[in-house]
Amino acid sequence: MGLLRADERLDDLQQGGCRIIQNPGMFCFGMDAVLLVHFSEEAAARSSRVLDLCSGNGVVPILTQARLKNRAGRGDAVCLPEFWGLEINAQCVDMAVRSAEYNGQSADVHFRQGDLKEARTIFPTASFDLVTVNPPYMIAGHGLTGKSKALTIARHEVLCTLDDVVKAARDMVRPGGRVCMVHRPFRLGDIFRSMADAGLEPKRMRLVYPVADRAANMVLIEAVRGGRPYLEVEKPLVIYQKPGVYTDEVRGMYG
Amino acid sequence: MGLLRADERLDDLQQGGCRIIQNPGMFCFGMDAVLLVHFSEEAAARSSRVLDLCSGNGVVPILTQARLKNRAGRGDAVCLPEFWGLEINAQCVDMAVRSAEYNGQSADVHFRQGDLKEARTIFPTASFDLVTVNPPYMIAGHGLTGKSKALTIARHEVLCTLDDVVKAARDMVRPGGRVCMVHRPFRLGDIFRSMADAGLEPKRMRLVYPVADRAANMVLIEAVRGGRPYLEVEKPLVIYQKPGVYTDEVRGMYG
Repeated sequence: MGLLRADERLDDLQQGGCRIIQNPGMFCFGMDAVLLVHFSEEAAARSSRVLDLCSGNGVVPILTQARLKNRAGRGDAVCLPEFWGLEINAQCVDMAVRSAEYNGQSADVHFRQGDLKEARTIFPTASFDLVTVNPPYMIAGHGLTGKSKALTIARHEVLCTLDDVVKAARDMVRPGGRVCMVHRPFRLGDIFRSMADAGLEPKRMRLVYPVADRAANMVLIEAVRGGRPYLEVEKPLVIYQKPGVYTDEVRGMYG
Repeated sequence: MGLLRADERLDDLQQGGCRIIQNPGMFCFGMDAVLLVHFSEEAAARSSRVLDLCSGNGVVPILTQARLKNRAGRGDAVCLPEFWGLEINAQCVDMAVRSAEYNGQSADVHFRQGDLKEARTIFPTASFDLVTVNPPYMIAGHGLTGKSKALTIARHEVLCTLDDVVKAARDMVRPGGRVCMVHRPFRLGDIFRSMADAGLEPKRMRLVYPVADRAANMVLIEAVRGGRPYLEVEKPLVIYQKPGVYTDEVRGMYG
């Protein structure tokens, strides 16, 4: 049997030959995942164990591990953590496992099928230095839903709410450990409220603006479990310098 | 007796001859006040009654009223609300009253000396359409304190905390009315928490970056009393395009 199943394709991650299996009817990663990888990379480089929640086809741990391995190969003093991904959709988990195998990452990047609301029964609590998450952005029942059930679940809070995600992250990360999330700015009030309730203190935030004179359409947040209140809002991340042309920073992310 | 007392000076607000009395040992307005005026101007233009808390020398209501009056004179369909300023420092209130008199604004801009923790005994509750506030930014006892007691009180939460400010704003604004605040991004976690506790929902936020590739150093937030959760993070506000040269947007604010 070949590497790919029906409707799947193999995409190049532009990172030392690292590739990823995608299925357009199920889940394909977007720029938000790439931004999350870069936003969380320094925290990952200081971690022993990293967990990715809502892992989809596993792009965040797969790409982060490939980047850290390349950095280590160039002589950078980085940790090469053990990565775990938790995803509820069994077909996505299957794609993620095959991608890691294809890339020779099976010893370093592991995936489990399961519900993040039961994360405490799947992993030891407080056993990760870093949790990354690119959760569903939309409130269940709000906005347009995709045609496929899998896409609706990936984008809407059907199977888990923001509070569920934040609580699972808090349960999995050790005290003093970090949680990195990408989300939509319109939910920021809910995000701050939910994190405060869970004992996660936002410490770094970066607003993502499609162009320099437009409203933000993504936000990256790093919180510390039990941290003291002090937030740095980092320099703006602008995607396009003009229509169709990425800024230097974003061009750099795509290698 | 002349207009100015010892150590005072009369500064031009670059708004149709409008001037303001300042005392460098007591309180001088900064760019944060000017940004707050512009951020809240459209809300003021749709209001009947506007209250400014932590009003200092009254720059926010004085400048906003002058701007709206000029717009009305140019034929813009704007409200000319009744403005009130509440300030605890009696000498600041005295400066604010004399500035309003000097500008011929005494019928439109009023000031009261008092503690915002007792705002409910000074003004009828829920009687304002808009509350503006440029509160002390620093936590009491943190960071450097100014040499003068008045400056320390203006900059540090000595006489009022963020929660006190937010609660007073909530008590003064009508349901559905707006609260516009300028603050420092490092307090954003506290600001969201405090507003959520008070029933003020952040609806608009603008991050202020000194230059395009530096961390934000100010934040402007508009909340609605009892609003439903949905935040727009507006386009970034960048102060300098290069050292010593304002961006066009900021140059426009200084007339």
